Amino acid sequence: MKAIGFSNSFDLRVSNEFEERDIPVPEAKGRNILVNVKAASINPIDTKSRNTSDGEFKILGYDAVGVVEAVGEEVELFHVGDEVYYSGTNTKQGSNAEYQLVDERLVSIKPEHLSYVESAALPLTALTSFEALLEGLNISSNPEDNKDKKLLIINGAGGVGSVATQIAKHLGLTVITTASRKETRRWSEKMGADIVLNHKHHLPDELRAHKINQVDYIFNTHSSDAYFNVMAEMIKPRGKIVALVNFMDKVDLNLLKDKSVTFSFEFMFTRPKYETDDMIAHHEYLRKLTYLLDRGTIKTTVNKTLKGLSVETITEAHRLIEEGKSIGKIVIEY
Amino acid sequence: MKAIGFSNSFDLRVSNEFEERDIPVPEAKGRNILVNVKAASINPIDTKSRNTSDGEFKILGYDAVGVVEAVGEEVELFHVGDEVYYSGTNTKQGSNAEYQLVDERLVSIKPEHLSYVESAALPLTALTSFEALLEGLNISSNPEDNKDKKLLIINGAGGVGSVATQIAKHLGLTVITTASRKETRRWSEKMGADIVLNHKHHLPDELRAHKINQVDYIFNTHSSDAYFNVMAEMIKPRGKIVALVNFMDKVDLNLLKDKSVTFSFEFMFTRPKYETDDMIAHHEYLRKLTYLLDRGTIKTTVNKTLKGLSVETITEAHRLIEEGKSIGKIVIEY
Repeated sequence: MKAIGFSNSFDLRVSNEFEERDIPVPEAKGRNILVNVKAASINPIDTKSRNTSDGEFKILGYDAVGVVEAVGEEVELFHVGDEVYYSGTNTKQGSNAEYQLVDERLVSIKPEHLSYVESAALPLTALTSFEALLEGLNISSNPEDNKDKKLLIINGAGGVGSVATQIAKHLGLTVITTASRKETRRWSEKMGADIVLNHKHHLPDELRAHKINQVDYIFNTHSSDAYFNVMAEMIKPRGKIVALVNFMDKVDLNLLKDKSVTFSFEFMFTRPKYETDDMIAHHEYLRKLTYLLDRGTIKTTVNKTLKGLSVETITEAHRLIEEGKSIGKIVIEY
Repeated sequence: MKAIGFSNSFDLRVSNEFEERDIPVPEAKGRNILVNVKAASINPIDTKSRNTSDGEFKILGYDAVGVVEAVGEEVELFHVGDEVYYSGTNTKQGSNAEYQLVDERLVSIKPEHLSYVESAALPLTALTSFEALLEGLNISSNPEDNKDKKLLIINGAGGVGSVATQIAKHLGLTVITTASRKETRRWSEKMGADIVLNHKHHLPDELRAHKINQVDYIFNTHSSDAYFNVMAEMIKPRGKIVALVNFMDKVDLNLLKDKSVTFSFEFMFTRPKYETDDMIAHHEYLRKLTYLLDRGTIKTTVNKTLKGLSVETITEAHRLIEEGKSIGKIVIEY
């Protein structure tokens, strides 16, 4: 089968180590299913993972959609021919290949009414958003509980921000996002943001300009260092903050003490990486996502499609992500 | 009325600025009740508050039990003659006086079957424990949900550790505490600890010696700096940590990233200090405490009683707390 990967870590500004190889189709055993991949989307973690080579040929790609080609002997949830989507794990070979193995507990049937490309955009960012909102921020899944609650999402037009905004609106929250360009502001409003702040300005001032002093929840999908102090200022007493990105520097955590604030990291590969007892939560979140997409409650966040599985398309997608200006998601159609 | 207080910050190893004054009895207005204080317990925050003088005569003392002497015009929950307990707020004059004003939303009827001294030991540490366990760690209040969950409480024999252990056992958790001396270990077992680790040793090793690799929850009632790295090691993927004490140094928060760990600060004066919309939560938690104490589910944690409201008893209680070896709680009977 065709696979795009690399054997040595590299910086795309300096060189390009991506190569196409013809490798054997892997065999589905245990709870794994073998998927014939039809489309994959690229996330920031793809580009960061170019640093993690150990000299072996490594295939990147997390988000994927495809058709079940074979199932392991312990598989209970899927059959050959099922159309599925998932973001899998960061500990095994990825989806930038014609076929991929994935544990059934990380997979769901794809939405019926969405194309492969439309579906491929969502699993990783939606899993991140569900875990961040419902677990990290412990937001109630009952919209009645949330009608007086305000959530600030930093970087509303990014891949995660785009779907998090939609899920949060579905949960009944008032959603405030940040953006700075006209296109990103418009995109974030299209995703459902009630208020869009300009993150080029001082966010607490931006917030007060809307007569809001503090918010109940903050979901920071951007730099943790850059926003830590203003998050500590904007969060309500006993409020909650969740973040995705590692800090570059050590943190003055005491800023959270007086208001008894909760800070969580959200890393959606925690469950698959540690194979936690409840890793089937990913199957369940994705089923919920399928339901919401098929009902039209949530819309796909795909904003750019590249054609064909090749070194060229993978490289282009990585470059676009690394420029930091992409809006919504980039999907590669195989 | 008699009141013990001070006007200038001081270090007890150098001088003693506590003085007795005769000051007017304050008047109950709005939602405040005036309490004739019968006993008060001393907490570590009392000793830390000796640093916060602004030159005005300041009365310390948070935990208190007493009899309602008068009520403000908006008071709905209490009547003159009610026997009540509370830990109040850190923004007003404290309980080291014959009479004290306190907002009714921070107060509950005291347990019927406990004496003043037995009751005075509990409000602040129990409020801290309820908030830390049910909010910071988001532990279910249904014991059925917790039967496979393990909580580690660092410093099990302290004031907070003693009541947190009992509440956590009531919630159905397996409770692991830490202690190092024979007396503190025995006390912590008496409070209900299933396993007591020795915090003079490397805690992850101590834990593994009991065939436990990681725990679901950690409640650190001791130094945040000293235990941060081992907490990051001992916590399960997607586990939760709550802490009470400010850090001396900045923190490498990234240690929590890979496992998507949640870190909360618990500061029980957050609600009264910021007068949050839900500050009546303290009334409700204390009512629950009264119920559990009257049923005998939770026992008082008083371990030493001093007689009489005086500069001498207040000073002795502060000294004992600062020595850092006290077990359970110290109460002053007025």
